Amino acid sequence: MLLPKLDPRGESPLYVQIYAHIKHDIISGKLPERSRLPSIRKLADFLGISTTPVELAYNQLVAEGFIESRPRSGFVVQDLPDPYGRVGSVSPLALESGGIREERAYRYDFHLSKNDFRPFPFSLWRRLINQTLREDKQQLLFYGDPQGEAGLRKEIAHYLYQFRGVRCSPDQIVIGSEQYHLLSMLSLLLREHVASIGVENPGYPLLPAAFRQQGFQVVPIPLADDGLDIGALCDAPVRLVAVSPSHQFPRGMIMPIAKRLRLLEWANDVDGFIIEDDYDGEFRYHGRPAPALQGLLPTDRVIYLGGFSQAVAPALGIHYLVLPKRLLEGYYRLYDQTLFEQSSSRLLQHAFMLFMQAGYLGKHVRKMRNLYRKKHDRLVQAVQRHFQEKAEVIGKDAGFHVLLRVHSPRTEKELLQLAKDAGIRIASAAFTWHQPPAEERKEFFLGFGGIEMENIEEGIVRLKEAWFGAEGTG
Amino acid sequence: MLLPKLDPRGESPLYVQIYAHIKHDIISGKLPERSRLPSIRKLADFLGISTTPVELAYNQLVAEGFIESRPRSGFVVQDLPDPYGRVGSVSPLALESGGIREERAYRYDFHLSKNDFRPFPFSLWRRLINQTLREDKQQLLFYGDPQGEAGLRKEIAHYLYQFRGVRCSPDQIVIGSEQYHLLSMLSLLLREHVASIGVENPGYPLLPAAFRQQGFQVVPIPLADDGLDIGALCDAPVRLVAVSPSHQFPRGMIMPIAKRLRLLEWANDVDGFIIEDDYDGEFRYHGRPAPALQGLLPTDRVIYLGGFSQAVAPALGIHYLVLPKRLLEGYYRLYDQTLFEQSSSRLLQHAFMLFMQAGYLGKHVRKMRNLYRKKHDRLVQAVQRHFQEKAEVIGKDAGFHVLLRVHSPRTEKELLQLAKDAGIRIASAAFTWHQPPAEERKEFFLGFGGIEMENIEEGIVRLKEAWFGAEGTG
Repeated sequence: MLLPKLDPRGESPLYVQIYAHIKHDIISGKLPERSRLPSIRKLADFLGISTTPVELAYNQLVAEGFIESRPRSGFVVQDLPDPYGRVGSVSPLALESGGIREERAYRYDFHLSKNDFRPFPFSLWRRLINQTLREDKQQLLFYGDPQGEAGLRKEIAHYLYQFRGVRCSPDQIVIGSEQYHLLSMLSLLLREHVASIGVENPGYPLLPAAFRQQGFQVVPIPLADDGLDIGALCDAPVRLVAVSPSHQFPRGMIMPIAKRLRLLEWANDVDGFIIEDDYDGEFRYHGRPAPALQGLLPTDRVIYLGGFSQAVAPALGIHYLVLPKRLLEGYYRLYDQTLFEQSSSRLLQHAFMLFMQAGYLGKHVRKMRNLYRKKHDRLVQAVQRHFQEKAEVIGKDAGFHVLLRVHSPRTEKELLQLAKDAGIRIASAAFTWHQPPAEERKEFFLGFGGIEMENIEEGIVRLKEAWFGAEGTG
Repeated sequence: MLLPKLDPRGESPLYVQIYAHIKHDIISGKLPERSRLPSIRKLADFLGISTTPVELAYNQLVAEGFIESRPRSGFVVQDLPDPYGRVGSVSPLALESGGIREERAYRYDFHLSKNDFRPFPFSLWRRLINQTLREDKQQLLFYGDPQGEAGLRKEIAHYLYQFRGVRCSPDQIVIGSEQYHLLSMLSLLLREHVASIGVENPGYPLLPAAFRQQGFQVVPIPLADDGLDIGALCDAPVRLVAVSPSHQFPRGMIMPIAKRLRLLEWANDVDGFIIEDDYDGEFRYHGRPAPALQGLLPTDRVIYLGGFSQAVAPALGIHYLVLPKRLLEGYYRLYDQTLFEQSSSRLLQHAFMLFMQAGYLGKHVRKMRNLYRKKHDRLVQAVQRHFQEKAEVIGKDAGFHVLLRVHSPRTEKELLQLAKDAGIRIASAAFTWHQPPAEERKEFFLGFGGIEMENIEEGIVRLKEAWFGAEGTG
């Protein structure tokens, strides 16, 4: 093991430096599974420091599941721990995409945000790129509009009105290649108005992480059965709240109209704003999709967040914010349009605009909706058939995952390990809680985006067997 | 004119809101050239406010050249002012790329950062994209490594070592689709160590703008004839400095070795960091390129900033930071690799990696260097031949622009207008000064990246005639 290079005058305490160094080596594969770390005493001697920081670092790594202390073996590197077991600290959303540089193949992959790329129109997209990367369109190789290509923003405005009831002009749309950067910009913009943000608890962790980084105080707000607890929101010291009303992440409820109107009323009352994360708004399988909050009333206080990662593909890099008109002046002032640069490639934006103009996006979304609906239904039926009273599905009928609540005396950690041993990838929903609940919930994501249709039922059968034994036992 | 929608309880003063609204309408074309604004009294009445904020807003717009006050006509919208004339406020770098939504064609376009796309290998790139967007590579449609694709980082590390003497492992490289976002991340990372940043004065405005946004104090440091004034740096209250030693932007000097070593010594002495902006390091036309600061000594205190926008094309979106090893722990801690997302498209990264692996990048850079050298030489000779003692070139022999210092009794504003009237686009270097110099410098960028080879001499002839009349006069 390569010794950590310590900076005694650094801002981080020594134990954090040691911890981060070892964690990184484990994650990047430099320290593979089953390798042994030096004893606390030995490492402290090597580094010329006391045992205390080394002990603290090792303890943290044990707590997070990266290493284990075994009698006579000492500290041994574990298989890269499922972050699933780490309550509240890590999101599996990008984990096995290469973010942790470990590509493991699962037979039954219920990863919560994978796409099914089988219907992706590869040859159409190659054609669109060929139409874009041309000698007679060389200006597309240069910098474009910092806010995003006007033609694409026009298409998006039209699309959003048609499919989600969002009312906006193309000028209100800001494009970005990924969410974090857009949220970062948004947080700087909103920092002029408010200093804290209410977030759904449980909820999507990227948004509060981006806001926290810009100095916001993050205030978790509990959920009721039908979405955010508005009473709790009114009591909270916030004038800005982030919600996912079309399909609450992760619990899946759809916010009813009456509550949406109350939320809009709240925003007017406190002179505040609502961030509406509509990440999978087009994907509702039974019943009609509810129109977006943004278009319900002309309060001009809703920031609408969306993108085409799930509907089409993450690598095309088309995400967007729809800003209320009242925030536009601040946006232009904060982001000098002559200095600031657009993160989404002009080439990909142009090709996506062509994709939309010719009607291919609508066609593709319909195809994906049908496919995902079939997979969703197959999954839900399989769970009902094989788990029966041992588990139930929460948050059906929309999006790309459901939650499975399991009735078992085993711990979450054990359940995850059993699943993994059976070649099944699932994620605990524990990471979505900002403040971990008092007891373990034993709720797991079952994503159906990535898993092949033909493996869904078998995967559920295997999962039931892994947790409860074969038919009649466990 | 559509009335500004004012928010009396907004954080911005009313006059800023009015100013920003009108400015935006002018820039977007809603208020075209020669249209008349309401009088101060009239607008104040319409808005139901006092005349003071309206007057302040109008004054600011006049000062910036957006409107002009004419006797009997009142306030009239000017042709979109060249930001060139606005000292210290605006960069033309992205101005006419569509950022200001005005595409004007100039016969003689000396825009300072346009590329010459005639040698761009379109058919090769179409082929590379076709090799990337394939059914059997569908994982490339999904999220990739948040730090950037490992294969591309490996190629970049190798390329940088070979061409710039940069010494780093692929792990030290962070990719991003554009500079602002990378600088934003870098500033958050460095904020744990320092609170102020020294910048070259004059210098590149995007970097201090990004740092200022994250709360840094920006301290301008003057230049000496051969680069940053190290004595002034030592006296400044900073432990972080940004420099462009290969080719100072905008004045073009190349920092000699002795000064580079002094700078590295300074960084050690103050336990600080240096940001090395090597934006055009491969483009030196006479004499050998100086090796990067980063690789000269193993101080591990240099953050190297580069990208392929000028060498290849901005729309491919490949920029990068090379972080010192000592900052890596902080980078991983701040940017949770399981939440954070890469802004550069995985598809474009993969295609760029193929472009590098097969040796096409090196070949393309050599071709571009030859072409730009010829254009550079043609430009410099034309200036010497036609301007003679009336103007001289500053900052020759590298990059994509030179500076022209003009000896004329006219003001910068007049000179710019005369050039524009003659169909010539140039930019004042005034915007590169953080603190405007005591008197106008009358220095202008002459970019030779975008202008066609055959128009260079004629453009210079016309410019000389526009400023000094035809041969023998003026």
